Amino acid sequence: MAWNTNLRWRLPLTCLLLQVAMVVLFGVFVRYSPEADAHWIEEKEPGNLSSDLENEFYYRYPSFQDVHVMIFVGFGFLMTFLQRYGYSSVGFNFLLAAFGIQWALLMQGWFHSFHEGYILVGVENLINADFCVGSVCVAFGAVLGKVSPVQLLIMTLFQVTLFSVNEFILLSLLNVKDAGGSMTIHTFGAYFGLTVTWILYRPNLYQSKDRQSAVYHSDLFAMIGTLFLWMYWPSFNSAVSNHGDAQHRAAINTYCSLAACVLTTVALSSALHKKGKLDMVHIQNATLAGGVAVGTAAEMMLMPYGSLIVGFICGIVSTLGFVYLSPFLESRLRIQDTCGIHNLHGMPGIIGGIVGAVTAACANIQVYGQEGLAHAFDLEGFKTDWSASLQGSFQAAGIFVSLAMALVGGLLVGGILKLPIWGQASDENCFEDAVYWEVPEEPKNAASHPEDSTLKAPEP
Amino acid sequence: MAWNTNLRWRLPLTCLLLQVAMVVLFGVFVRYSPEADAHWIEEKEPGNLSSDLENEFYYRYPSFQDVHVMIFVGFGFLMTFLQRYGYSSVGFNFLLAAFGIQWALLMQGWFHSFHEGYILVGVENLINADFCVGSVCVAFGAVLGKVSPVQLLIMTLFQVTLFSVNEFILLSLLNVKDAGGSMTIHTFGAYFGLTVTWILYRPNLYQSKDRQSAVYHSDLFAMIGTLFLWMYWPSFNSAVSNHGDAQHRAAINTYCSLAACVLTTVALSSALHKKGKLDMVHIQNATLAGGVAVGTAAEMMLMPYGSLIVGFICGIVSTLGFVYLSPFLESRLRIQDTCGIHNLHGMPGIIGGIVGAVTAACANIQVYGQEGLAHAFDLEGFKTDWSASLQGSFQAAGIFVSLAMALVGGLLVGGILKLPIWGQASDENCFEDAVYWEVPEEPKNAASHPEDSTLKAPEP
Amino acid sequence: MAWNTNLRWRLPLTCLLLQVAMVVLFGVFVRYSPEADAHWIEEKEPGNLSSDLENEFYYRYPSFQDVHVMIFVGFGFLMTFLQRYGYSSVGFNFLLAAFGIQWALLMQGWFHSFHEGYILVGVENLINADFCVGSVCVAFGAVLGKVSPVQLLIMTLFQVTLFSVNEFILLSLLNVKDAGGSMTIHTFGAYFGLTVTWILYRPNLYQSKDRQSAVYHSDLFAMIGTLFLWMYWPSFNSAVSNHGDAQHRAAINTYCSLAACVLTTVALSSALHKKGKLDMVHIQNATLAGGVAVGTAAEMMLMPYGSLIVGFICGIVSTLGFVYLSPFLESRLRIQDTCGIHNLHGMPGIIGGIVGAVTAACANIQVYGQEGLAHAFDLEGFKTDWSASLQGSFQAAGIFVSLAMALVGGLLVGGILKLPIWGQASDENCFEDAVYWEVPEEPKNAASHPEDSTLKAPEP
Repeated sequence: MAWNTNLRWRLPLTCLLLQVAMVVLFGVFVRYSPEADAHWIEEKEPGNLSSDLENEFYYRYPSFQDVHVMIFVGFGFLMTFLQRYGYSSVGFNFLLAAFGIQWALLMQGWFHSFHEGYILVGVENLINADFCVGSVCVAFGAVLGKVSPVQLLIMTLFQVTLFSVNEFILLSLLNVKDAGGSMTIHTFGAYFGLTVTWILYRPNLYQSKDRQSAVYHSDLFAMIGTLFLWMYWPSFNSAVSNHGDAQHRAAINTYCSLAACVLTTVALSSALHKKGKLDMVHIQNATLAGGVAVGTAAEMMLMPYGSLIVGFICGIVSTLGFVYLSPFLESRLRIQDTCGIHNLHGMPGIIGGIVGAVTAACANIQVYGQEGLAHAFDLEGFKTDWSASLQGSFQAAGIFVSLAMALVGGLLVGGILKLPIWGQASDENCFEDAVYWEVPEEPKNAASHPEDSTLKAPEP
Repeated sequence: MAWNTNLRWRLPLTCLLLQVAMVVLFGVFVRYSPEADAHWIEEKEPGNLSSDLENEFYYRYPSFQDVHVMIFVGFGFLMTFLQRYGYSSVGFNFLLAAFGIQWALLMQGWFHSFHEGYILVGVENLINADFCVGSVCVAFGAVLGKVSPVQLLIMTLFQVTLFSVNEFILLSLLNVKDAGGSMTIHTFGAYFGLTVTWILYRPNLYQSKDRQSAVYHSDLFAMIGTLFLWMYWPSFNSAVSNHGDAQHRAAINTYCSLAACVLTTVALSSALHKKGKLDMVHIQNATLAGGVAVGTAAEMMLMPYGSLIVGFICGIVSTLGFVYLSPFLESRLRIQDTCGIHNLHGMPGIIGGIVGAVTAACANIQVYGQEGLAHAFDLEGFKTDWSASLQGSFQAAGIFVSLAMALVGGLLVGGILKLPIWGQASDENCFEDAVYWEVPEEPKNAASHPEDSTLKAPEP
Repeated sequence: MAWNTNLRWRLPLTCLLLQVAMVVLFGVFVRYSPEADAHWIEEKEPGNLSSDLENEFYYRYPSFQDVHVMIFVGFGFLMTFLQRYGYSSVGFNFLLAAFGIQWALLMQGWFHSFHEGYILVGVENLINADFCVGSVCVAFGAVLGKVSPVQLLIMTLFQVTLFSVNEFILLSLLNVKDAGGSMTIHTFGAYFGLTVTWILYRPNLYQSKDRQSAVYHSDLFAMIGTLFLWMYWPSFNSAVSNHGDAQHRAAINTYCSLAACVLTTVALSSALHKKGKLDMVHIQNATLAGGVAVGTAAEMMLMPYGSLIVGFICGIVSTLGFVYLSPFLESRLRIQDTCGIHNLHGMPGIIGGIVGAVTAACANIQVYGQEGLAHAFDLEGFKTDWSASLQGSFQAAGIFVSLAMALVGGLLVGGILKLPIWGQASDENCFEDAVYWEVPEEPKNAASHPEDSTLKAPEP
């Protein structure tokens, strides 16, 4: 397959077209939320706000910035582990996320922030847009190295759309709680990406096998991504929870789960190597599974030990997945999952959905308090009489809806991306920056870095 | 030109002298602001502060930390793209910023926080000091690789002084609004730096041409800088805005502008390459132009689509600048601009000033509300009767004042730095860490990293 | 000494055993603090909390995240300067910190947050757990490259225990103020680590001398660690201070001290090199000494110039330590201190304790105000009549207690770690990732990175 990878007109036109569409749609639809509008000074007084601090900005902005770092540095650098695909990992992630957050502001806005003809955006919309793009970054991990930036933009366009529909079904129709997105972000994103990569199966990918691994320094770059994801995950899972105790609790639970996950990942990584050596791939990825798997339940009364147990299990499941399941998926099911997102986001996402359903089903007044229970699960209006087990059932339904949306959507989008017109590389040129980037030549003689003696014009 | 680059006495003496001066001046002038003073517990009660949270610290501190990261990691790593100048990029940026923030606390303090003989510093002063140093980091980008650390300290000393005077003229005399510093930081910093590098013109710089480019890994280091600048720019532009809606709005506008800027940068970068390939230089720099250009207007009612348009234009202008204007400036005007700051800070800074002037001139009660308009533009006291167009005119005047200060100041400081006594390197030794740093020898045989088989003392 | 470095069963069993113990102990002991519990909505009303913002979460969470970055990215990357030990530096730091924070939540919880049989954790506990682990990271710096991950886990287990006891003695029995941990974290951590490395003395370490230095890129990775430590240190020293002015002041003082420290470090580094060149080791480490040394006094009325003086001195002391003291300690006292923690944490920690004692002893009503003084030093209950000099004396006592605990504890733990059963490497295999990690082979022909011309399947 000798496709034309020269994107000179396709990429610029796609970018400009999408961006012009964004400008027009923003012009028609997007305005500031009341708390970001200059009229706020007049409105806060009748609203009995005693202080400027009551502006939503101060509740959410620090979490927003942490989430922002996770999307751009976290996901971007996590994928730089490939020896010759660092530019594309960071750069294409940057591109798709920058487009995705704009489109997500619109899509999620129409569903959740539409008032009198306008989408009113505030800091919570920014966080949710980042979340939505997070699911695209997850899917990007499956197809990393095998798609062109044009394909990524198209995938982003469709995936953000499907994400928003799925999120609307879960949060607004099924009344599911999913603050950290185990289902909406991770399960959906992972199985969507896996379906796409299944459709885009490349039979001769072994031809670029030598570039599909790390070199020493690229693994260290990837650890920058891992650590920023790991450190800021408490902000991710707490960013859009209810003010006060829910945000507080979500951060604590995530902190605990992630800590436990590191130890079991290390344990399994060593135990599964014949000489007991650790594998960077596991440390870079499986240590994060604990954050994925408490996404739904983090804001609930999961208890710190509950979080530890979730992290404990996920470190094991995820590492086992890398060692045994990924090779199986590739050889038998023809699912070429570059970053192993099935192990980091797929299985832990489903576990997270189940943990959330069980935790919700077990909620009771003793643990939450009367008001606390109503507040935690929005048991007001038509939900006043919902039992905990009913909430749990709807939570469980959310998992299946997310999976179904991901599979159907993935088939559709995979089919579109399979058209041979998007500038994708041939199998032997995958995982190679030089296809889409101007790459510097290596210094001819790497050993000739000037030392003192070679500095010209010696001091007088 | 065989200058003496041994800084053994010049650099230590300069550092110690400056630091001793700082200690003495801080001892004479600097005290804590009331909100950072132990007396605060007594003062907050009569001030009707209901909560410790009303301390300015909680409004500004998260933004401060983000700005701090931009100055030290953002600017520092953005400049590591050069293959043999990483130590100097990060290290000299660290040095000049560490000195600059102290001197800026004093200079800006005398102008804006001087009460009864003392400069009273709080968290807002820390942010403003970082901002001031930001303009020095911008100018550093123009002379990167061609100056000694002694020259940089001298440049910082003068530039911070001039910055503070210019800022005082704009903010206090012309009553200009410029929260994100399009004019005070970027326009001033860029044209100051360009003037300095014009004065320091090196006719034989082609002799170190081979070191004036990137290698694969250095481009990835630079992307760390790019991304932290990009991600935290919403904090930069909102850090010193009014509490509440203004900070909130500034963050949203900056987020939007930066997102749009990425897409047009990618579009132009690909379109301008004969094979449609992307250029890392553009991705590292032009994607940030949108943040520069909404600096002034971000806190105003620019509207999200307005921000998108600004970002849209700046991605294009900045990338075109890298491709066409920079080579022209170097060959015809003898302006050797190492990092292309004219494209990232110069032109976008001026655009930002214009956007701010136009946005201010268009402000009206319908959009802002009566109180909102007065609050946004401080229309009280002698400004009560100011019209929006008058505000706009003063904004526009601010651009010209900043340009004039930058050019005159740059000529002066460039003249001082041209003296052949500061330890600058000869033309053929530019862009080389080994001039000022103890650089490790490369491992003799790069291929001999020990593998299992080569580990000594095998297991029994 | 040909020890068995195959950790296949030892490391997994240690990790799983410790993690199971954590799950059980958390199950028995750990619950949410009232502000993270779902009952909070009911409790805040009688507590007269007007707003959700009064939840401790909003006071501390941004600082917590900054501290978290310091522990995992800061310490982790600071130690990547070694050319072939980057995986271990980042990875083992990750492992020990992930275990340490869990164990610290328990140990510190029993001492400080134990109510009716339960440890109630909130965001302040998370910060304190990170702090405690910080002291382990410090000690790790001394033994870096010479110990196995099993040894590190054992060291962490004991050190966290001893830290918590020492902290309890200082904070609760001696009523010492030490918000930034000059004594509890840095002095204790450094001298503990130095004692351990003294016990673990390796006479033939020169055999791995060639790997005990940096290469060009590893120094840039290390600067990531340095800068994140440096930038977020104001959050470190202010994270657990009293609300309001104390947090505000601690941030300002740390900012000032660190800035001054950079200039004197650069001055000394250049002055002590025969050609006036800078040494990356100094820039990476000694620039941080100012943050260590204002740890105790940062929240006191040290005054900005006082902070500058502390930073000034510590930059000099620390750099001199690297140049003269470390070689002496190694050759004469057989203390092999890989990262030079004695220079960065040991001496500056003691200086910090002394500065704190002097600042406390000099406190008076004029400077602090009546209420301010009582609030700053908790002069209530049995402490109502404490004089400033008494407080100063107890502060000074804290230094000696910390030193004693560190030395005794270090002897004990060093003795345990010296047993030849923990999988440590032989002297000639120290500082080498390949002992414990699956390390990628270097590309056979580093010069053959595909350029355009080598891309297969050229475009049609």
